[in-house]
Amino acid sequence: MGCGSLKIDGESLLARIREFAEIGRDDSEGRTRLALSEGDGMARDRLVGWMRELDLEVRIDPVGNIFGILRGEDESCSNALMIGSHIDTVIEAGPLDGVYGVLSGLAVARAFRESGLRPRHTLMVAAFTNEEGVRFQPDMLGSLFFAGGISLEEALAARGTDGALFGEELRRIGYAGDADPADLHPAEYLELHVEQGPVLDSEGIDIGVVEDLQGISWRRVLMEGAANHAGTTPMPMRSDAGYAAARAIVFLRELAAASGSIRTTVGTLSLSPGAINVIPSRAEFTVDMRDPDEERLLRGEREFTGFLDRLKEEEGVKISVESLARFEPVRFDFGLADSIEAVAKGRSLSTLRMTSGAGHDAQMLARVCRTAMIFVPSRDGISHSPAEFTPEEQLLNGANVLMDVAFELLQKSGKGL
Amino acid sequence: MGCGSLKIDGESLLARIREFAEIGRDDSEGRTRLALSEGDGMARDRLVGWMRELDLEVRIDPVGNIFGILRGEDESCSNALMIGSHIDTVIEAGPLDGVYGVLSGLAVARAFRESGLRPRHTLMVAAFTNEEGVRFQPDMLGSLFFAGGISLEEALAARGTDGALFGEELRRIGYAGDADPADLHPAEYLELHVEQGPVLDSEGIDIGVVEDLQGISWRRVLMEGAANHAGTTPMPMRSDAGYAAARAIVFLRELAAASGSIRTTVGTLSLSPGAINVIPSRAEFTVDMRDPDEERLLRGEREFTGFLDRLKEEEGVKISVESLARFEPVRFDFGLADSIEAVAKGRSLSTLRMTSGAGHDAQMLARVCRTAMIFVPSRDGISHSPAEFTPEEQLLNGANVLMDVAFELLQKSGKGL
Repeated sequence: MGCGSLKIDGESLLARIREFAEIGRDDSEGRTRLALSEGDGMARDRLVGWMRELDLEVRIDPVGNIFGILRGEDESCSNALMIGSHIDTVIEAGPLDGVYGVLSGLAVARAFRESGLRPRHTLMVAAFTNEEGVRFQPDMLGSLFFAGGISLEEALAARGTDGALFGEELRRIGYAGDADPADLHPAEYLELHVEQGPVLDSEGIDIGVVEDLQGISWRRVLMEGAANHAGTTPMPMRSDAGYAAARAIVFLRELAAASGSIRTTVGTLSLSPGAINVIPSRAEFTVDMRDPDEERLLRGEREFTGFLDRLKEEEGVKISVESLARFEPVRFDFGLADSIEAVAKGRSLSTLRMTSGAGHDAQMLARVCRTAMIFVPSRDGISHSPAEFTPEEQLLNGANVLMDVAFELLQKSGKGL
Repeated sequence: MGCGSLKIDGESLLARIREFAEIGRDDSEGRTRLALSEGDGMARDRLVGWMRELDLEVRIDPVGNIFGILRGEDESCSNALMIGSHIDTVIEAGPLDGVYGVLSGLAVARAFRESGLRPRHTLMVAAFTNEEGVRFQPDMLGSLFFAGGISLEEALAARGTDGALFGEELRRIGYAGDADPADLHPAEYLELHVEQGPVLDSEGIDIGVVEDLQGISWRRVLMEGAANHAGTTPMPMRSDAGYAAARAIVFLRELAAASGSIRTTVGTLSLSPGAINVIPSRAEFTVDMRDPDEERLLRGEREFTGFLDRLKEEEGVKISVESLARFEPVRFDFGLADSIEAVAKGRSLSTLRMTSGAGHDAQMLARVCRTAMIFVPSRDGISHSPAEFTPEEQLLNGANVLMDVAFELLQKSGKGL
């Protein structure tokens, strides 16, 4: 590892990231390439063009996932390494989320092509459709389909926030392919990504070795009290949905603090009728609860439900809870994580074993193969924003670690050969 | 008192309340007569018509306040009793708020006319403009002007929520008069009103003897933190404006409970950016704080400000506070309150000395004369809603108490005669 590896062309990688950042660029500092939009189509065309320049075999599956295949001595995909991520974006996105991982995979393929070395195993570079989920639900639709978690019919019938149909939009931009995902399932999957959180940046660490991914519970809570006059209704006679919601928000923070691992967020809240002198009769808010451990996440959900039952009595409010989404935590492959850590140490880079707080295509791939992720720092933890930034040196650190791990996996003997 | 009084015509009063309830009626159960709207104009015409039927001298002042004057043996206004309230409404209002007080005043005048008795002192029935403040700010504009608390220029320049100018709308509906308020300041002012709160109803009491009116402090609070990813941002690294707002809401409830007299309400709250998986960077909410005692209200405001200073440090949020409105508590005339209580007891009605939680024209009149209010129960404390309801018997109880007190005041000797 390290010593015997190939070298990626860092300048070329950075130039391509910059070039991609112009696709879907609008008046502001950001770029917007919602899944299957014009911008996404242009980005796909650019990516496929680069794959063909490297003489990769380009395959498109029925939901538009793109694969660039560099056949090894063992031409089978079942022993292959896949490196991937996504190229769709949120609205007003930064330049790195997703794109960095896909183009780094392409840089690995390019390193092989330029060295003239044919790898022992096959390398596949993947770009999965609709990871962000801003236009179509569910998010990570492409990798979910690839891993067999959603039927083709359901995927094609997804309705966009703009009313457009997934299947129609896919055909319109020319990316309804016919490759069978089952034929392309790899032996390993690596995804290089910016952290999208503050941990590496604030602790001054170069490489995050991602060994698991938080489970996610999204719920909507509705509280109903009675709208009465703020001046004339004595405090003990109130049934204040807004106050009850505030207590729930404070409880969720305490729950997170007590657990030490659970993260809780209330990102949306609305009060009705919404007048300065009227006690809120209705409060509606969402709860985002995450933990890398399923048992702890379940316990957190139960504790919150128990609290709401007590609150109902204390405040005289009606409370209903609806589950909006629920994903179990994902455990990545510890052996792959060890390899990433060892390679990084070989390059004298500092590392941290960590949990991914955000969802990634890797969590879907973990259903079908050995999977791990590599993180590089995000300045101030900012992502999904034009302000998303990682210094070039750190981007290259990550790509080099990816290169080394890929080289080791692609060249190793055994693995069913 | 009581025994020697006149009798109001209860059937006529109830019929007129019902008739008024149809003016500005829309498809729903409610009626909408925003100040200086078509509906308000129609209601004014009806009221003035009834005043003329009783041969009252009708005077209109420059902000459209309407006065129907029944001259007593002492024709001067400075020794007069004024009975009043307002006939404008909120959106989708109930049938009683304001109207009940004005039409009961008219019923007292009618009782004198029908008896043929000329009162010793002069009686004035008043309907003040724009009490509700839904269309034009400030609320209670008419009585505020009458009491000298706002200049004519400022009043006429008030801009409605619909963009309309107060002065122009007043001329349009034909109620820009020329009576000088200073000429019409009375010796006493009585206002009969539904409680708009639950106390009398829930305690089964007939008559509220209102001896003071809460001071009101309205503030807008803006909290600014940092919008970060709900999954990737460790709890201790957050600066969550929504959580900080929730703590403030919980604190306000505790502050109210600890004081025993302060009432606090957070009726509006908005979070930005408002996404389920993004920590709120911005929370904006309003605080309605009331107390009948100015010292206690000031102390409550200070305690809240002190809490915000600590919260700023603890949560790492920026906090700014803006005052939206501030009224000192109003103390009514205890002698008048005693008269109301005695009259009610004479009629075997149960009474409660109480504080008005809502604002009323009486608080402005208290600046220029001896003032008190009489409350009757509101079922379930509901007001500003089509569901506002008081049983007819209780409406008549209130009107009879008003009649008796008015008779006593109008017939008594002395008072500068």
